[in-house]
Amino acid sequence: MDYATLNFKELIPTLDGAVLVVTLNRSKQRNTFSTGLADELERVFQLADEDDRVRVVITTAAPDAPAYCSGADLSAGWGGLGGKGSPYETREPGGNVSLAVYNCRKITIAAVNGHAAGVGMTGMQLPYDFRFVWEGAKLAFPFVRRGIAPEALSSFFLPSLLGMSRAKALFLSGTVLAPSSPLLAGLYHSIIPKKEDVFPSVLAFARELAANTSQTAVAMTKSLLVHPPVSGSLEEVVEMESRTLSMLSKEGDAREAGKAFLEKRAPRMADGLGVLDKAGEWYPWWNRQAKL
Amino acid sequence: MDYATLNFKELIPTLDGAVLVVTLNRSKQRNTFSTGLADELERVFQLADEDDRVRVVITTAAPDAPAYCSGADLSAGWGGLGGKGSPYETREPGGNVSLAVYNCRKITIAAVNGHAAGVGMTGMQLPYDFRFVWEGAKLAFPFVRRGIAPEALSSFFLPSLLGMSRAKALFLSGTVLAPSSPLLAGLYHSIIPKKEDVFPSVLAFARELAANTSQTAVAMTKSLLVHPPVSGSLEEVVEMESRTLSMLSKEGDAREAGKAFLEKRAPRMADGLGVLDKAGEWYPWWNRQAKL
Amino acid sequence: MDYATLNFKELIPTLDGAVLVVTLNRSKQRNTFSTGLADELERVFQLADEDDRVRVVITTAAPDAPAYCSGADLSAGWGGLGGKGSPYETREPGGNVSLAVYNCRKITIAAVNGHAAGVGMTGMQLPYDFRFVWEGAKLAFPFVRRGIAPEALSSFFLPSLLGMSRAKALFLSGTVLAPSSPLLAGLYHSIIPKKEDVFPSVLAFARELAANTSQTAVAMTKSLLVHPPVSGSLEEVVEMESRTLSMLSKEGDAREAGKAFLEKRAPRMADGLGVLDKAGEWYPWWNRQAKL
Repeated sequence: MDYATLNFKELIPTLDGAVLVVTLNRSKQRNTFSTGLADELERVFQLADEDDRVRVVITTAAPDAPAYCSGADLSAGWGGLGGKGSPYETREPGGNVSLAVYNCRKITIAAVNGHAAGVGMTGMQLPYDFRFVWEGAKLAFPFVRRGIAPEALSSFFLPSLLGMSRAKALFLSGTVLAPSSPLLAGLYHSIIPKKEDVFPSVLAFARELAANTSQTAVAMTKSLLVHPPVSGSLEEVVEMESRTLSMLSKEGDAREAGKAFLEKRAPRMADGLGVLDKAGEWYPWWNRQAKL
Repeated sequence: MDYATLNFKELIPTLDGAVLVVTLNRSKQRNTFSTGLADELERVFQLADEDDRVRVVITTAAPDAPAYCSGADLSAGWGGLGGKGSPYETREPGGNVSLAVYNCRKITIAAVNGHAAGVGMTGMQLPYDFRFVWEGAKLAFPFVRRGIAPEALSSFFLPSLLGMSRAKALFLSGTVLAPSSPLLAGLYHSIIPKKEDVFPSVLAFARELAANTSQTAVAMTKSLLVHPPVSGSLEEVVEMESRTLSMLSKEGDAREAGKAFLEKRAPRMADGLGVLDKAGEWYPWWNRQAKL
Repeated sequence: MDYATLNFKELIPTLDGAVLVVTLNRSKQRNTFSTGLADELERVFQLADEDDRVRVVITTAAPDAPAYCSGADLSAGWGGLGGKGSPYETREPGGNVSLAVYNCRKITIAAVNGHAAGVGMTGMQLPYDFRFVWEGAKLAFPFVRRGIAPEALSSFFLPSLLGMSRAKALFLSGTVLAPSSPLLAGLYHSIIPKKEDVFPSVLAFARELAANTSQTAVAMTKSLLVHPPVSGSLEEVVEMESRTLSMLSKEGDAREAGKAFLEKRAPRMADGLGVLDKAGEWYPWWNRQAKL
């Protein structure tokens, strides 16, 4: 599969070794979130999830873009966002994008090299595993000041990521924030002084992770974190963790990592996600079709 | 409705534009938490919830009070707190107050302009959306040092607000803390150097929010945050967020906010909570009667 | 019961007043986590849970140990960790240890006076109520770099303790961290400059808590925090908090603490956990046999 031939328009996917770089292609529109962009983001993250070559996915704006993502595409007004009843009538597309990113079994990173507001803060950042940001970015969750409410699963993500105290303060004040705001403490993995250094920093971080982590281990770690057991009991968590450890420890990546550790060299972990098919009936313990 | 005529005794409610200021009226008792105060707090927050004039509710101590709230009223000993079996026999009143504040659909702010301990830290602060505090306040969750356990829903709120690491440390040490303690990081929206500046700072903050936010958007944002979907599934979160966005975007506040944004002027959002009655059977998705 | 006669080998339990000190006894093996150590940790925490003399439990390394706990015992390779299929075949032992520590109704403290990795970070730290650490400790959650996934209930504990943003970053990067890393903010109660000062600092902290807290109040506070009500409803939380407050306020510890407070002297709280047997059918509200 060659990402260059897949007819993406609103974004440009580029495979750099084991790192898939998704560059937003709506710089002239300040990378506003259109239904077309939403469809393509959902699709590219589903492809990355299934593609063993991809170990890390980065979403970023082009170097000359005036914003990382300045919110929903309101070029045709609220009414222009979807079908007749809009916006989005019965289902807003940010939720689909967030589910695709959140359920992607690879490491995901938002390289926020510009301003961000609305869905540019929610669906374009919160479902990712890591967020890097430019120190000068203006950031806002302005929903209550626009007469609307948070979307793209952000009413779930923000309390989960930062706790309810910061989540309420962010959503109910709706003010413009700098990345260094105490309200955002813990959200960003790194705050980068220069705008043009954000993407290179993220790429170096991504390449190091791609080279030194196991994609099966990453996939199972993410599954344990984001898909709590059905019963919610700690006993079931122990069972899922135990089954996972037992399975992974017998596979090639764990053996290679063990050898490399003893030999004090970098490991070459080559297992693909097909390994997980051997897990048996217990995996996945959630309903993948239902996106739950 | 005129709040001044409603015969409140333990507190004084004053409507300042769209901001309802609830001043505790037990300065001589260090604003200790009596069953009378509890009943009046529950009532005033229920009134504010239903009153379209009110967009923000502030709870604060009088300027000359020696404490914001120094805990339960033990003037008649533990036995004086409730009926025969007491304290509070089968239901302690802090839980009722916390539910009334937590379920209030307006923005709620605790202006902690003095010392606080016990229920003064729990029911009088944790269910609020924002907390401002005087830098010199002495703060304590002393329960385990008094032979009792946390109440007023604080065993749920504190881990939810700050995470379980800080919640356990706060509840199990029970020491007196300054607002700047790392254990409290994220709890206070602002720490104000001078005691007498706490309330004016909060009032200015409240007025700005009252002027520039939509009360229907605030109500729905709070509903999404504090009432997770029944199934607990992300798919259901997307559905509730989508229905909310679709509904709100067609109402007056979103249209006015959109226009004002384009015209670079302040919006005049006038929708009342009656708008939410049009939502249909899906709202509320939780049981309001049961206070859940 | 004399802890010295109970034939522990991998650890040394010492009762210091009301503080049980559990010193890891595998310094030569860098305190690696063996199945023998796991069994003894589970047992000693179950004993401490039932022993009214014990109010606080500390786990620590010997002063001359080269590490607090440097991970799983891989001296016989991955295959040496358990039975035939290993590691640990159907149940990894870190989960048992974490459940024993988490369910212990006494105050638990990890005195991390050395480096820690893998289960040395998870099962040996996360289920504790407090963590103190040496400033120079090297800390790592290296699972994804070893081809495996987190265990010992850490996939539940870390998001619960610090929020999902930090939990994902810690587990998916797997890098070596200093205690002062922003990623760990909130995890450690205190960071101690000198290695040899860690244990004395923890012991002084533990003695103060043992002297001035009620063990029944501690037990019930922990129950409210770690065993949410079955229905998950706030109404049920209020009920459990109310029942707990009503019960505890009538017992000796609350009366003594109340008197001591009025008389401005230190309390002498003597109630044992047998008091909780009087609670009635509502306690425990979770299934203790099932370790849930």
